[in-house]
Amino acid sequence: MLSTMQDVPLLVSRILRHGSTVHAASQITTWTGDGEPRRQSFGETGERAARFAHALRDELGVVRDDRIGTLMWNNAEHVEAYFAVPSMGAVLHTLNLRLPTDQLVWIINHAADRVIVVNGSLLPLLAPLLPSLESVDHVVVSGPGDTSVLEGCSQSVHDYEQLLEGRPTTYDWPELDERDAAAMCYTSGTTGDPKGVAFSHRSMYLHSMQVNMTQSMGLTDADTALPVVPMFHVNAWGLPHATFMTGVNMLMPDRFLQPGPLAEMIEAERPTYAAAVPTIWQGLLSELAEKPRDISSLGMVTIGGSACPPAMMRAFEDDYGVRVCHAWGMTETSPLGSFAHPPAGLSAEEEWPYRISQGRFPASVEARLAAPDGTFAPWDGESAGELEVRGPWVAQAYYGGADGEPLRPEDKFSPDGWLRTGDVGVITPNGYLTLTDRAKDVIKSGGEWISSVELENALMAHEAVAEAAVVAVPDEKWGERPLATVVLKEGADPVGYEELRAFLSERIARWQLPERWAIVPAVPKTSVGKFDKKVLRGQYAAGELDVTRL
Amino acid sequence: MLSTMQDVPLLVSRILRHGSTVHAASQITTWTGDGEPRRQSFGETGERAARFAHALRDELGVVRDDRIGTLMWNNAEHVEAYFAVPSMGAVLHTLNLRLPTDQLVWIINHAADRVIVVNGSLLPLLAPLLPSLESVDHVVVSGPGDTSVLEGCSQSVHDYEQLLEGRPTTYDWPELDERDAAAMCYTSGTTGDPKGVAFSHRSMYLHSMQVNMTQSMGLTDADTALPVVPMFHVNAWGLPHATFMTGVNMLMPDRFLQPGPLAEMIEAERPTYAAAVPTIWQGLLSELAEKPRDISSLGMVTIGGSACPPAMMRAFEDDYGVRVCHAWGMTETSPLGSFAHPPAGLSAEEEWPYRISQGRFPASVEARLAAPDGTFAPWDGESAGELEVRGPWVAQAYYGGADGEPLRPEDKFSPDGWLRTGDVGVITPNGYLTLTDRAKDVIKSGGEWISSVELENALMAHEAVAEAAVVAVPDEKWGERPLATVVLKEGADPVGYEELRAFLSERIARWQLPERWAIVPAVPKTSVGKFDKKVLRGQYAAGELDVTRL
Repeated sequence: MLSTMQDVPLLVSRILRHGSTVHAASQITTWTGDGEPRRQSFGETGERAARFAHALRDELGVVRDDRIGTLMWNNAEHVEAYFAVPSMGAVLHTLNLRLPTDQLVWIINHAADRVIVVNGSLLPLLAPLLPSLESVDHVVVSGPGDTSVLEGCSQSVHDYEQLLEGRPTTYDWPELDERDAAAMCYTSGTTGDPKGVAFSHRSMYLHSMQVNMTQSMGLTDADTALPVVPMFHVNAWGLPHATFMTGVNMLMPDRFLQPGPLAEMIEAERPTYAAAVPTIWQGLLSELAEKPRDISSLGMVTIGGSACPPAMMRAFEDDYGVRVCHAWGMTETSPLGSFAHPPAGLSAEEEWPYRISQGRFPASVEARLAAPDGTFAPWDGESAGELEVRGPWVAQAYYGGADGEPLRPEDKFSPDGWLRTGDVGVITPNGYLTLTDRAKDVIKSGGEWISSVELENALMAHEAVAEAAVVAVPDEKWGERPLATVVLKEGADPVGYEELRAFLSERIARWQLPERWAIVPAVPKTSVGKFDKKVLRGQYAAGELDVTRL
Repeated sequence: MLSTMQDVPLLVSRILRHGSTVHAASQITTWTGDGEPRRQSFGETGERAARFAHALRDELGVVRDDRIGTLMWNNAEHVEAYFAVPSMGAVLHTLNLRLPTDQLVWIINHAADRVIVVNGSLLPLLAPLLPSLESVDHVVVSGPGDTSVLEGCSQSVHDYEQLLEGRPTTYDWPELDERDAAAMCYTSGTTGDPKGVAFSHRSMYLHSMQVNMTQSMGLTDADTALPVVPMFHVNAWGLPHATFMTGVNMLMPDRFLQPGPLAEMIEAERPTYAAAVPTIWQGLLSELAEKPRDISSLGMVTIGGSACPPAMMRAFEDDYGVRVCHAWGMTETSPLGSFAHPPAGLSAEEEWPYRISQGRFPASVEARLAAPDGTFAPWDGESAGELEVRGPWVAQAYYGGADGEPLRPEDKFSPDGWLRTGDVGVITPNGYLTLTDRAKDVIKSGGEWISSVELENALMAHEAVAEAAVVAVPDEKWGERPLATVVLKEGADPVGYEELRAFLSERIARWQLPERWAIVPAVPKTSVGKFDKKVLRGQYAAGELDVTRL
């Protein structure tokens, strides 16, 4: 039986219209380093977004579904592009300015971006790429920069402010299908080509509502949010859209992401909320230890991207009165997957295990744990499995390129359409996720899983061990078994494998204990400093490690 | 360009699954009057909802789209029906137990309910109707009551608890279309037959998210909500669904809606939030004045259904420390239309005009004011128009009955599909709505609107006036002009029309002043005590009023 409700699509333009009228007075403040911050209301932002859309359509000839790349910092102009591009029916493609240039070129060509909007300060990064970009017709430069580097390029070059000048301050945003793509973002895994996720208007709208729910960030127009997380990292975790939905003010760091400027802008502009990855927060703590600043305006900070050391959480709380809240997500989950607000009614100490978990799933994110035996593991806080998720803001495929079918690699999407996250973890009966390992690093031993991370942490607790990396190696009887590679501390008392094994056996179930051991001078690392287990497995296979079997 | 996001429908069953697992420990407490309250966890509620769905399908033969009526108070079993019925693909039809019995019969027959679930205490109301119910095959009785009144009825009679006994505690909820009807509710206007609104899974899901956003009720699992508003009034304003989405505990008053028991349950169970219409709150204030109770647990109460006298808001705040928040909505808006949180950064006195308004629209509710001249009035806080709204939880039609097409009366729905609310008001530039009149009571004078309510309030401020009702009467020159009918206070100094007009002219624009005046012994009233302006207009047309023309 059909309902009698209106069939109104959930569109980014609706968020823009709302934010720029009902919350017209809310502010975007963009940090400028030494100078006065630039301040712009949501109302002005709406007008400028309309002007930009007119320019894109009338001057640059942008049509429905054209991809518009942005190579920009977190600033007011980037917010304008965030709203103008999807609202007019084009697709916003945020470019990660930290990627290797060959990956950037590959991604821009794969997405077939027609326009790139770039901050002037990033022209030295963009200019050398231009000859390799197959689809880009226009470069739009926002903010000061040396445009001489663009001389001789085949693309038309435009000044952002000149483009906006004199254009109408309203735009008749089209009524789109809510399942149309609104924005896209590439995720660069450690293997293979980068993968594009194309978010829909619907997914972004629902995600924005979730961000504003009490289970998540739950801010109001009395708040000022500081998204330190870049706007090219999964839409700055959805903050620009969510803030327009509820009138939350934004403090934008622009390119001033170093600990010093961050501490300064927090002290000066008094944001009540901030979001970033752990390394940023670690840097801020060190900065504050050296040169104290008042960061007491911050009621809560969300830490995501990777797990946050509990010591850092305690430092923020005990020394600065700032509540730290863990969140988990990935590009494929828009990114809000879980949020670590503890259940109500617990003491501070009882809350702790929940707060250091990856958090609780909201209603719109269904989760299950694919166990090694092909079943789904129960939510008992102990049974591990690969986390699979499903929901209206979770990806079901990767973008296949301008002419390609969507990509659905088997290791990323289950036959029934769930996203395979590649993370192994456990879930408590009340829906809190704790990730224990990456699926590719887990040791599949006789139909059971052994967490490499758990073994590594246990080994690194030994006083003689500097680093330890555990990888799966083939085993005739069990399929796979753990190989423990250990870096000993300089000057520590010599320690034997037997002693390390005995040390482990006090902490780890007997059947999980490694039989194969190797002392190594250093654990091979990736470019971002993570253990490179692929290399270790290769060294083992090639017989390059001096392995002792206990 | 298609997105790569999953196409996951927004379903009531998703809310149920989430609430009964992730928030399994949250509680529904049902008040029992003198005895111990009945306590049941969300986890148990999920199991009982599954049992009930099995019983409906296997024992009563309920199939997709069957309408299941409920004639019930706010209690745990009603919540079970709220989730079981839509989740299995049937349609929940909540019946307003305060309606005249002939309307109840008409509504049940129009909806073609196949089953009615009834609280035992309401059997005396239901039993006499049964012979007139054309479609009802089954009556399910929940809770104690005199079932002897059902003897001889043609329907099968079942005991709710016996139906549930021994059935599976899980149910494989079907994957429905999110636009399918989930629940329905009839609105009984003052004219014509009652009109049915059929909410969709999508509309209820989105509405639940909105309720949990900070702009609206914004509760967490640390809260306990007391829905005094009946579950047959637009789904208790969406609270049962919203609470399952975030684990908010519920305190259910059952049939104990009198001020005394309400004060008792608040003192005993310490809810942090409550929702009701103004008359309930007025009664509670009187009760507390007579016999003080501790209601300090209440952080916020939402008042909706009709405007709340500012004096009552101040009394709750000043005397009891309870923050009162106005909300506006109607059955056709699910009901959350606007919510009167003031903008941030104002003093308590500056907040006041916003707090006594009907509130601010959320992003998902678009609003416009249809002006008398056929244009749309600006949001300037002064220009009046009939409020029209649009959004994913706003109705676009009424249910046409089992075999009928949906009804789209012109006075209720605009040609482009917006809901005409029948309310006249103004909207501030920042999106706060103030309703000034009903559209049918407004005086349409020379292309401008005169508010009857404004004239009445101004007249009633005169010390000699007990009551005043202003209605539109035909006028050759202006189309319509106001007729002021006045009831004088007993014993007050005699007052002439000239003096009243002079009194008005200090408060009201000159062109709005009535030319036609009549002293009447009493203003005719409707059954619920509102001015019956239809009768007044009829009396004027029939020449029954002694009208003086100034």
